[in-house]
Amino acid sequence: MPIVSHIKLKRAMTVSDVAKEMEAVRVLGPGRFGKAARILAEMFRDKNYQNLISLAGPIIPGGLRTIITELVDRRLIGGVVTTGANVTHDMLEAIGHRNIVGSESMDDRILRRKGLSRIYDLLVTQKGIEHLERTTHRMLNRIPEGRRQNIASYELLWEFGKQLRDENSLLRTAQKRGVPIFCPGIFDSMLGLNLWTYSRINSLFINPFKDFSRLVDMTYEKKKVGAVILGGGMPKHHVLIANSYRGGVDAAIQITLDRPEGGGASGAPLEEAISWGKIKTPNKLVTIVGDAIVIFPFLTLAALERAKA
Amino acid sequence: MPIVSHIKLKRAMTVSDVAKEMEAVRVLGPGRFGKAARILAEMFRDKNYQNLISLAGPIIPGGLRTIITELVDRRLIGGVVTTGANVTHDMLEAIGHRNIVGSESMDDRILRRKGLSRIYDLLVTQKGIEHLERTTHRMLNRIPEGRRQNIASYELLWEFGKQLRDENSLLRTAQKRGVPIFCPGIFDSMLGLNLWTYSRINSLFINPFKDFSRLVDMTYEKKKVGAVILGGGMPKHHVLIANSYRGGVDAAIQITLDRPEGGGASGAPLEEAISWGKIKTPNKLVTIVGDAIVIFPFLTLAALERAKA
Amino acid sequence: MPIVSHIKLKRAMTVSDVAKEMEAVRVLGPGRFGKAARILAEMFRDKNYQNLISLAGPIIPGGLRTIITELVDRRLIGGVVTTGANVTHDMLEAIGHRNIVGSESMDDRILRRKGLSRIYDLLVTQKGIEHLERTTHRMLNRIPEGRRQNIASYELLWEFGKQLRDENSLLRTAQKRGVPIFCPGIFDSMLGLNLWTYSRINSLFINPFKDFSRLVDMTYEKKKVGAVILGGGMPKHHVLIANSYRGGVDAAIQITLDRPEGGGASGAPLEEAISWGKIKTPNKLVTIVGDAIVIFPFLTLAALERAKA
Amino acid sequence: MPIVSHIKLKRAMTVSDVAKEMEAVRVLGPGRFGKAARILAEMFRDKNYQNLISLAGPIIPGGLRTIITELVDRRLIGGVVTTGANVTHDMLEAIGHRNIVGSESMDDRILRRKGLSRIYDLLVTQKGIEHLERTTHRMLNRIPEGRRQNIASYELLWEFGKQLRDENSLLRTAQKRGVPIFCPGIFDSMLGLNLWTYSRINSLFINPFKDFSRLVDMTYEKKKVGAVILGGGMPKHHVLIANSYRGGVDAAIQITLDRPEGGGASGAPLEEAISWGKIKTPNKLVTIVGDAIVIFPFLTLAALERAKA
Repeated sequence: MPIVSHIKLKRAMTVSDVAKEMEAVRVLGPGRFGKAARILAEMFRDKNYQNLISLAGPIIPGGLRTIITELVDRRLIGGVVTTGANVTHDMLEAIGHRNIVGSESMDDRILRRKGLSRIYDLLVTQKGIEHLERTTHRMLNRIPEGRRQNIASYELLWEFGKQLRDENSLLRTAQKRGVPIFCPGIFDSMLGLNLWTYSRINSLFINPFKDFSRLVDMTYEKKKVGAVILGGGMPKHHVLIANSYRGGVDAAIQITLDRPEGGGASGAPLEEAISWGKIKTPNKLVTIVGDAIVIFPFLTLAALERAKA
Repeated sequence: MPIVSHIKLKRAMTVSDVAKEMEAVRVLGPGRFGKAARILAEMFRDKNYQNLISLAGPIIPGGLRTIITELVDRRLIGGVVTTGANVTHDMLEAIGHRNIVGSESMDDRILRRKGLSRIYDLLVTQKGIEHLERTTHRMLNRIPEGRRQNIASYELLWEFGKQLRDENSLLRTAQKRGVPIFCPGIFDSMLGLNLWTYSRINSLFINPFKDFSRLVDMTYEKKKVGAVILGGGMPKHHVLIANSYRGGVDAAIQITLDRPEGGGASGAPLEEAISWGKIKTPNKLVTIVGDAIVIFPFLTLAALERAKA
Repeated sequence: MPIVSHIKLKRAMTVSDVAKEMEAVRVLGPGRFGKAARILAEMFRDKNYQNLISLAGPIIPGGLRTIITELVDRRLIGGVVTTGANVTHDMLEAIGHRNIVGSESMDDRILRRKGLSRIYDLLVTQKGIEHLERTTHRMLNRIPEGRRQNIASYELLWEFGKQLRDENSLLRTAQKRGVPIFCPGIFDSMLGLNLWTYSRINSLFINPFKDFSRLVDMTYEKKKVGAVILGGGMPKHHVLIANSYRGGVDAAIQITLDRPEGGGASGAPLEEAISWGKIKTPNKLVTIVGDAIVIFPFLTLAALERAKA
Repeated sequence: MPIVSHIKLKRAMTVSDVAKEMEAVRVLGPGRFGKAARILAEMFRDKNYQNLISLAGPIIPGGLRTIITELVDRRLIGGVVTTGANVTHDMLEAIGHRNIVGSESMDDRILRRKGLSRIYDLLVTQKGIEHLERTTHRMLNRIPEGRRQNIASYELLWEFGKQLRDENSLLRTAQKRGVPIFCPGIFDSMLGLNLWTYSRINSLFINPFKDFSRLVDMTYEKKKVGAVILGGGMPKHHVLIANSYRGGVDAAIQITLDRPEGGGASGAPLEEAISWGKIKTPNKLVTIVGDAIVIFPFLTLAALERAKA
């Protein structure tokens, strides 16, 4: 029977070195982290994997914009499913608005008066949000009306990507690389409000069925599908349900602070998805209980180093 | 300075009696529960409130179908924003498929072979899901094609409600009462798959902008808006963002097990929404940390009794 | 196969009525709540049960002092294992100091200057704490030195109970009823500091081995042992480990917001304790994920009503 | 106003490099991780710090035994406050018993029959536990009776450390380095049971007041006190309360998955402790929401590298 071992620290360890030590622990949190690094390395290394990542929670505003963009740029990720908020934040930064460091104990009424909106201890400027509305409308005007009358969210976001000048932008990079950014809840975000106001006086029909057809098609393009699930919500569920036609994903890792007992999809163990045909096997699954924006940078580094080796 | 008191139990206490004892505690969990009962009673009593409820997690399959339906039937709730899963479950039961009691430690591969799909310790039959697909397609056929070409989710769900025979059905009751059920992520559910398969060979275009226009309009129909938030996800965010045009909701309660520190919208304190203009004031806000499907029945009973008094 | 049902609300429902509706749900949170009410009713009704309760977190200051005292007074609870903080709070109130309603967003430096100490949104007065030190020393002086030289925590707390005048006091009531209050971490509390300062100039030897002998003996006094676990920590573990000599408790319910994946005892599922011989069987176990001070009042009421029926 | 930045990944980054990137994010989880690395580096670098670490949850069995031992060996940690379980596990390994890799879905009744006890997905052998009982009694016999009659837990654990042969043992290393291991709940553990059975036929009196006197003295030995809090429970509270005489610790980091809203000490924000005089200032405090045994290895590496630089 395999034995639990202990992590040994050495000088100037790389993240991958630590992940290997954790994999040898084999149990509890370190064991799960180590296993996730191994699975993610396999997804990155094996060209037969179509890797889909889901983004919920403040992944882009919370400091991971460059990481997600780089993974898309290197085509280590073949498709992204995200909340509207993450797309909104990519665009805000792309048009020059950076978020501000605040505190979770600020008085929200005062912030409101100052034109600052809070995400825990991060502040977004209303000025940026207003600028985004004007920019979005302008960018929409540049899309031919015929195209606007029946457009998928991923097509729309490519159109935006084409018009953005920021090389660090996820949308820009995704468009250049032909990686689709699916945003099934695009209506439910600051960006979504802009689309809605536009649609009231102009032709704009976003067709989620077109998105879903494309996403399902993608699950058949390579031999295997890998799912990288950051946070829960609709993005998590969407990546998994799209794979139910092909019998489920082949490997999946999720990082979440949500709990399973309530029965919601966000905190559900990946194993449950096997009974729905959304995941194939329990062998290549792992859940890390933690904050995705803390854990994922370490996990990515570990996997990139291992994938190379 | 107000003093913390202690809960006294008496014989045959009603839930409202307990809630009053808890309100007198004034601090920690009991204080929050008591405050929520008071706010909810006000929302139920005061005819100037337009009450919107958001449903995320297994609210309908987890035992609260009758409660939510009754609140809609009595028009104590004026609008519902829900995940597709909750709608799917209402329809499954309406066409005769009940869920089965399982266990969280069942082997999901075996369940898959048996045609059972798991939500923690609850089992859904694939037979029901297949029946639902046929029924959905049949119900869609009965909707005039012209209407299907540009339909809001709430209109579609009313059309379904009209065709369902189950008096306990949320969709049926909502249609009878003219209460809209908004489902911004309808595409992302078993029902959504049925809509998608239908749309590939028939005319079906669901227009989320129509939904959002209706939802925003509703926020202006009465003097005040009350938000009852069960779980997080897109339904929570959607109810709040729709109120940003009118300057925010007037009162809100949320029940959640998600945590705030990660920065995701699901676990975010309601106070944050003030800085976004989605909530007006900190005075009538409360978050109960707990499982919505355990807490909400008690809370509803307490509020109904108080609203009457 | 059993079917999931839905909660029906009626007018003036008692808490027990709701618990029965929840038991019929059979799954997820409501199922667990209903099962817990049934198990607790059995513990209360069946005279063969020795019921032990563990208290961690702000059970006494958070509004449940009267409830716990009543259960001890009616001997529905045969023994209590608690943190030192809960004992400290019982004594503070017994000598006339009530806690004050605060807010979780108060500035702790200002509170410090004002002589107020914070537990989330509850404030404790330093004046009370200083009064408690003097009172504790005086009460210790009244205990014969011979007894003080080798005293168990439960004996010491009985001695204090004897000297307290407050009929609502848990310590007072426990002493009158001969119910031991075990406090294995008594040293680690405000009261503990008082004991320590006293011990530096007077004879005082608290002997935890005496406590443990008594606690283990208690597990043999009746045919069955029931464990009611509010929060985790040392009190939870202590109740369970004391039962390992007799092969484990016969029934147990726990209410906690801690999670299992980290591997700590506080959040551990009760089933784990079977492998340690601390619980006998998986049949009469249930964990409710929730805030103990919100859930336990409802659970107690439901169980008391059912135990009578 | 400071701006939120994004993490940039590079080849073969050390953990310290990542921590610096996270510190620059300044908000949310990465910001907290980066701040914690900076504070911990200061604690390690500045010789004026008396660093106290608290261990709750499976820190030692979960893979961090070598790390904690190394920090004690290098005297970067001056004192340890721990649960009895962590001490038990150090001793089990020191006498040759390693833990076994299991799974969280194992049947606990079968494990019980096989003599295996479970901590989530880690298995402890009953054989080891029985061996430990014999060894503990033998080691106790070698301690002079006079010393056994009034011994602090830290003195007892040094006596054990002296008799253990394993150079990786925390107890052994702590004894060699003169670092006290305080175990205020030593009675409440497998080791505690051994002490209790011994005490029933031999002289053994463990005096927690002696422990507390030593711990309080330690808080005065250097200019500053730093607290490193892994998990919650009594160890966390104990480190903090011991510092209340000197006006509080100067810096503290905690890693926990417990939540604050319930009001328990385990999940309480460090800021609360300022109002109790257990922490001096809000400037050098940080809480990381996460699994301590995943986060602390990365944090330690980052801090060690920075402390050197």
